[in-house]
Amino acid sequence: MNPSLAADIQKTNKIFEQLVAKRDFEALGQVYTQHARVMPPGAEMISGRENIKSFWQTAVNTMGLSAVKLQTVEFELLGDAGFEIGRAKLEFAAGAPSMDVKYLVLWKRENGDWKWHVDMWSPVS
Amino acid sequence: MNPSLAADIQKTNKIFEQLVAKRDFEALGQVYTQHARVMPPGAEMISGRENIKSFWQTAVNTMGLSAVKLQTVEFELLGDAGFEIGRAKLEFAAGAPSMDVKYLVLWKRENGDWKWHVDMWSPVS
Repeated sequence: MNPSLAADIQKTNKIFEQLVAKRDFEALGQVYTQHARVMPPGAEMISGRENIKSFWQTAVNTMGLSAVKLQTVEFELLGDAGFEIGRAKLEFAAGAPSMDVKYLVLWKRENGDWKWHVDMWSPVS
Repeated sequence: MNPSLAADIQKTNKIFEQLVAKRDFEALGQVYTQHARVMPPGAEMISGRENIKSFWQTAVNTMGLSAVKLQTVEFELLGDAGFEIGRAKLEFAAGAPSMDVKYLVLWKRENGDWKWHVDMWSPVS
């Protein structure tokens, strides 16, 4: 992956890590495309940025998600799209155990910015 | 999606359904690209067609997977690649309960045929 693209990808991923830590859900507009989909383990697919915002608000405010750390393993460019395979660690408040997951993200450019268009993850064990 | 592409996608998906039913694992070469990845729930990622073959052999022969029914919900073309969102029902022998899953598949053309390049699924509940 060229250095400019790698920097763009890491910038978006960093915004997501920081918005969870700061509970700043407005920043999700910089992470997900307008018609993005989220496919969490053990749940139905969630469609659209507003519904995705509700999902992450619930994850943080009700389920106690306190931090996410993303690690890109691979990124492959497909024209104006691309996919990323990665690993993430989800941490929870109140001493709940952290969760190690793998993820597959379909990226798209929206108004020049690289964003998550389909976001799926599941535990590695 | 144009009718020709839709037919190609359905043909590959049908091969997968049939190979599970017939336990014909050699046909996996018509389904997965050589360097494909499988990302099953609750397990680490599996890389490469030979390892994927072992994974499905174990699922069928040891875990009792007896049938898979795939249903495409959406397909979006990305040049010589594309992604599919779908739902599947996994059935198991010996009266074990079936499992409803959602899936995200990254498709690629390999030697002119459309195949699964990254295959991820998880339960919907």
